[in-house]
Amino acid sequence: MKISGTHYRTIWPTDAGTVRVIDQSRLPFEFATIDLDTLADAAHVIRTMVVRGAPLIGATAAYGMALAVRSNASDTHIDEAARILQATRPTAINLAWALTRMRNALSGVAPRERVAAAYREAAVICDADVEQCRSIGVHGLGIIQGLAKSVGRTVNILTHCNAGWLAAVDWGTALAPIYMAHDAGHRIHIWVDETRPRNQGASLTAFELGAHGVPHTVIADNLGGHLMQQGQVDMVIVGSDRTTAAGDVCNKVGTYLKALAALDNGVPFYAAFPFSTIDWSLDQGRDVPIEERSAVELTHITGRTSAGAIETVRVVPEASPALNLAFDVTPSRLVTALITERGVCTANQAGLRSLYPDRGAAE
Amino acid sequence: MKISGTHYRTIWPTDAGTVRVIDQSRLPFEFATIDLDTLADAAHVIRTMVVRGAPLIGATAAYGMALAVRSNASDTHIDEAARILQATRPTAINLAWALTRMRNALSGVAPRERVAAAYREAAVICDADVEQCRSIGVHGLGIIQGLAKSVGRTVNILTHCNAGWLAAVDWGTALAPIYMAHDAGHRIHIWVDETRPRNQGASLTAFELGAHGVPHTVIADNLGGHLMQQGQVDMVIVGSDRTTAAGDVCNKVGTYLKALAALDNGVPFYAAFPFSTIDWSLDQGRDVPIEERSAVELTHITGRTSAGAIETVRVVPEASPALNLAFDVTPSRLVTALITERGVCTANQAGLRSLYPDRGAAE
Repeated sequence: MKISGTHYRTIWPTDAGTVRVIDQSRLPFEFATIDLDTLADAAHVIRTMVVRGAPLIGATAAYGMALAVRSNASDTHIDEAARILQATRPTAINLAWALTRMRNALSGVAPRERVAAAYREAAVICDADVEQCRSIGVHGLGIIQGLAKSVGRTVNILTHCNAGWLAAVDWGTALAPIYMAHDAGHRIHIWVDETRPRNQGASLTAFELGAHGVPHTVIADNLGGHLMQQGQVDMVIVGSDRTTAAGDVCNKVGTYLKALAALDNGVPFYAAFPFSTIDWSLDQGRDVPIEERSAVELTHITGRTSAGAIETVRVVPEASPALNLAFDVTPSRLVTALITERGVCTANQAGLRSLYPDRGAAE
Repeated sequence: MKISGTHYRTIWPTDAGTVRVIDQSRLPFEFATIDLDTLADAAHVIRTMVVRGAPLIGATAAYGMALAVRSNASDTHIDEAARILQATRPTAINLAWALTRMRNALSGVAPRERVAAAYREAAVICDADVEQCRSIGVHGLGIIQGLAKSVGRTVNILTHCNAGWLAAVDWGTALAPIYMAHDAGHRIHIWVDETRPRNQGASLTAFELGAHGVPHTVIADNLGGHLMQQGQVDMVIVGSDRTTAAGDVCNKVGTYLKALAALDNGVPFYAAFPFSTIDWSLDQGRDVPIEERSAVELTHITGRTSAGAIETVRVVPEASPALNLAFDVTPSRLVTALITERGVCTANQAGLRSLYPDRGAAE
């Protein structure tokens, strides 16, 4: 999508063989890119959430493998690189998916041809992600168009965290239908959950919607329920960091609370994601590993002072412990439908099987 | 309750005739008091939330009337003072209750005796609040004791916003049973919602629990649902800024989401408040006026820098609008029981009538 009129992806290779990413830890106040030169660089930007979002984590891990192979194309180094990258974030399943795919692409290739093969495969993964997100957008657009027809006024859509183009390579997952609806001239307005901790809604979703010109309002995570009670939300759409074979959606913590409120108020609740987010090995949401991150993400907040400086302030008493679990699981019974690159399906095993008959069979 | 071993109330008259309050806008990083000299001072500290919490808003309004009378004891000035104070915060019903009570106490009194009568009545209101909160604590303690017996381990209690002694004159409402359980030697642990925006949980509840030595952990507002799914919450207890005659609870925005999660996970959900919080004139939660506060409370956050300075930072892009509604309404169907100074009752008209037969009759 565009920033100040220029089209960007979130990750791309440079002519020098490095990999360039947008530094999302400095948004919304500064737009800057970082060049990744080594495997360690790639692992670092994933772990520290300079890049984040399930699809982009996968894409960055793929290029991380390419950077690893560039320095040493041996089997042992490939094993080691996959181990290091896998350990960076435990919840997003796309990470494991991308690493498996890179290893498969390299396994039958002679070491001296591996560098080219790795960059080629990473580029294919990125291009495929863009195409998948575009398809998610097309399928989700149909839902928004249906709502626009039935409400006959601006459609109000609530989203949690950032599942926009900054979370993917381009387009995004949850926001792809929103960009398409906006570009098609539908009147839409987005309620942006600030998404504590780390504030990816306030800092990333608000930034990218604003940069693309989509009307939106930032709200506290606490407000969505009240807005639904008041009839001010027509649909909820979120991404997913891991979806079980039963249609349970593991996404940024707080998603579950919004799904409960949506059900209580008859508001449709959708999760949008590419197939690489589906964990076919998991039947129950309770089996998804939930990442615990540093409490500092909760006790401290970074923003811009009135003087223009970027400053971090502590907001919790020093004597008080804090717990920062990054995800929760929304049971499929609360999800109206799932939107993937293949279409829209009910949030259960039968629904996912209907879209992925090749994976839905007993394995 | 105590801070560093010294017992405090949140508001008290000085020998000079001024009224001293704790400046809650500077907590948890600085403990300071402010002397109120005039009606305008009292209105200002309520409006700017230097003092907040339904019972304390009522107590401060009562002393605000005393300060008004001290400068001019005429009927017209009393009318004007009540009008000014009433306009400071629209949702908390205690404000109207305290003002009516002060006007009744002054109406039959000759102007020259009104100053003494006003200070006397404000003190009675404060003492009564302390006694009511203590009674709420006693009734709520029974619930915690029952849980302690049935779980046979530390009882985990989640609370939202600040309904502790800082929200009242002493003891608090939702936290009164917690202080009593802790003082009685029960093993309890409190999950403290940070409570965006304004962070009254992170800044006030964490501060007062820490100062009293109650084990607690600060969490994002988004995390409570996941903790309930994981069996890590044994009960939820919150305050109320206004309770309808039907038992609907209007409290800090986000309370409704926690009540939904509690119901979904079989966790009991309680609201604790004195009778002055009950609005007998309202049958439906949807009729409660919801205060809209400045978006700056959402777009900016104040905390302490690593250098020790108190600094405010912007966390939302400047081009993005933000909406800050301060309360939501939890329908009575989600509330396990109400705890008042008179006991515990079901959250409906019959329950409230059983505790307040004098008010429950058709009026």
